Amino acid sequence: MPQAVPPEFPRRLSAPDVPRGYAFRFDEGERLPLDCGRTLAPFDVAYMTYGKLNASRSNAVLVCHALSGDQFAAGTHPMTGRAGWWETMVGPGKPIDTDRFYVICPNVIGGCMGSTGPASCNPTAGKPYALDFPVVTIADMVRAQIRLIDVLGIEKILCVTGGSMGGMQALEWAARFPERVVSAIPIATSARHTAQNIALHEVGRQAIMADPDWRGGNYLNDSVRPARGLAVARMIGHISYLSEAALTQKFGRTLQDRTAYSFGFGADFQVESYLRHQGSTFVGRFDANSYLYITRAMDYFDLAAEQGSDLANLFRNTAIRFLVLSFTSDWLFPTNENRAIAQALSNAGAKAQFREIESIRGHDAFLLNEPEFAAAMGEFLNSVAHERGID
Amino acid sequence: MPQAVPPEFPRRLSAPDVPRGYAFRFDEGERLPLDCGRTLAPFDVAYMTYGKLNASRSNAVLVCHALSGDQFAAGTHPMTGRAGWWETMVGPGKPIDTDRFYVICPNVIGGCMGSTGPASCNPTAGKPYALDFPVVTIADMVRAQIRLIDVLGIEKILCVTGGSMGGMQALEWAARFPERVVSAIPIATSARHTAQNIALHEVGRQAIMADPDWRGGNYLNDSVRPARGLAVARMIGHISYLSEAALTQKFGRTLQDRTAYSFGFGADFQVESYLRHQGSTFVGRFDANSYLYITRAMDYFDLAAEQGSDLANLFRNTAIRFLVLSFTSDWLFPTNENRAIAQALSNAGAKAQFREIESIRGHDAFLLNEPEFAAAMGEFLNSVAHERGID
Repeated sequence: MPQAVPPEFPRRLSAPDVPRGYAFRFDEGERLPLDCGRTLAPFDVAYMTYGKLNASRSNAVLVCHALSGDQFAAGTHPMTGRAGWWETMVGPGKPIDTDRFYVICPNVIGGCMGSTGPASCNPTAGKPYALDFPVVTIADMVRAQIRLIDVLGIEKILCVTGGSMGGMQALEWAARFPERVVSAIPIATSARHTAQNIALHEVGRQAIMADPDWRGGNYLNDSVRPARGLAVARMIGHISYLSEAALTQKFGRTLQDRTAYSFGFGADFQVESYLRHQGSTFVGRFDANSYLYITRAMDYFDLAAEQGSDLANLFRNTAIRFLVLSFTSDWLFPTNENRAIAQALSNAGAKAQFREIESIRGHDAFLLNEPEFAAAMGEFLNSVAHERGID
Repeated sequence: MPQAVPPEFPRRLSAPDVPRGYAFRFDEGERLPLDCGRTLAPFDVAYMTYGKLNASRSNAVLVCHALSGDQFAAGTHPMTGRAGWWETMVGPGKPIDTDRFYVICPNVIGGCMGSTGPASCNPTAGKPYALDFPVVTIADMVRAQIRLIDVLGIEKILCVTGGSMGGMQALEWAARFPERVVSAIPIATSARHTAQNIALHEVGRQAIMADPDWRGGNYLNDSVRPARGLAVARMIGHISYLSEAALTQKFGRTLQDRTAYSFGFGADFQVESYLRHQGSTFVGRFDANSYLYITRAMDYFDLAAEQGSDLANLFRNTAIRFLVLSFTSDWLFPTNENRAIAQALSNAGAKAQFREIESIRGHDAFLLNEPEFAAAMGEFLNSVAHERGID
């Protein structure tokens, strides 16, 4: 039986005195088999919950985080002091209504917020895994989540949802564990990572690995961090999360704290200042090796690879209800990728709805206050809950 | 009177025994005033020519290169041994027909292929300028080109053209020196660099400046080069030059020299291998500080800034004929940016045609064999030449 343990946070960062979430440790006897052929033991799964599990254990909503996310979907983040990443969606009276639903948000394995990842101690070596950590996949992340759901005594998840990499996990759950899922809402995602997305990730990884402070991944042993490389990787990510229109509307060519060009290489433009800030704050809360591992997991994601990419074949006669959502200005996980998922689901005979939400905010729209998006989520969840007799 | 001098190439790179182009040196008495308020002296302008200047000196076509380009538009590049960057467009019988036209292609100041830039010797210090080189603008680049055209004894350019930053120079020529230009073909460009484009450049600059071998810009003194940072910057650039569709068509998720995932951080995917190759070969031919300076010049470009961004006001009653071209899948300099230029020109009463070329190849399409594009260029140039009585 797994033990409850306090979740770990990234090395050399102190957490303020706020709720740190929960974690279970799975020991030798509960090894996690991985796609790469290796197994992981022991391993921790850190998670947060919001709301209350009902007596019939039927009101659980599993929220899966994206690349740079974590288990703190709502409430106050214990490290940043800011609101959780999905505060627009999760909370009392919100679309994923914590007055009605029991929300579980796990940190993915490979991550750095308490679930076992490359910064965790490798018990056979007595030091951080670094690159000895096995390369994990989206399927591996979901296998670890299944263990958590088992421990929590939940037979069937009412809904599994998430955006971006969270959507990949939602699809993986629905494809591999259909008996454990009532409904799924994959958002702004893809059934297979595209060449452009792999390319963007690869540049981020190269930036990290080019930083001499990365030290072949062993920076934690040397008490350094590849801060500059990770910041550059994060900046690349940020550009891909926003649309051109959003960047123009938000920043345009507005100068930062000046009225004329400096004719130098400082942050003359607001957009430069914004990116530098995004890069430097990320470094304080995220582990560089985790960034490598999680981007790799996304790159390897090709849900129906064994079916010759025939997604419909994977979902033939599934009983799961789906809502697939995309955003008009998302160029990272564009509408056509999401529509293809919905189309394949329909072809498979699934009850699948598709909605493209009008927004200029790009991929990031799924994290922001988008009323049409929130309404679509809320209505679908209400309908699923109603069907299952949950008030 | 400026002197003819051999063009310089980037430090510590030997050039094969092939034509190295030409260069003029402008001395103290011919100082170049710059937008930043400083002046540059001495300064060299390196250039190549293709074809022959006719007796009336009326058949000159000025080809302006983009960020990573140089004066070697056609023929064999003396450093890479590969074809010039616009071999599809410039040559005997090609759209810019060197049997009829005298093509001049200058290296921009700030560049690293013989024109004065940050790698050139600062005469007052006796060592490379590095960051003591003044931040130049697109207007400054054009001012240096005017000097070259004067020395070559050409009163009026039949056509000034270029893609991307080359298009910015073409617009700058047309706006500031209308009496020196008969026609202009700006391609895949913008009258003001957008927030997204500034953001992409800024990440590239951060990658270079984060490389410890950059050494505050003084790497040449220390006989090192910020190769990893520059490679990352180039990779970011390459992603932005291609469309998602082109990347999918060219690479998809195809693996490189393997049949299964490595579960590691090597270049499993062809697209990763391609990017790494693009990054590493670029480092051999390009100066990192030049990359900083040239991207900055593009970021600062806002042609009608002094007119309150009213482009039409800038071109009121111009006699110049324009052809503005864009590509459907170019997300870096999208059609709407180019159409806005053509619209402003029309509003100003200019003879301006606009053509959007169907292509999945993204921004890079202007460098590639695109028959509809080539035909549009050829037809326009023929018509302009015919109007001026050039056979």
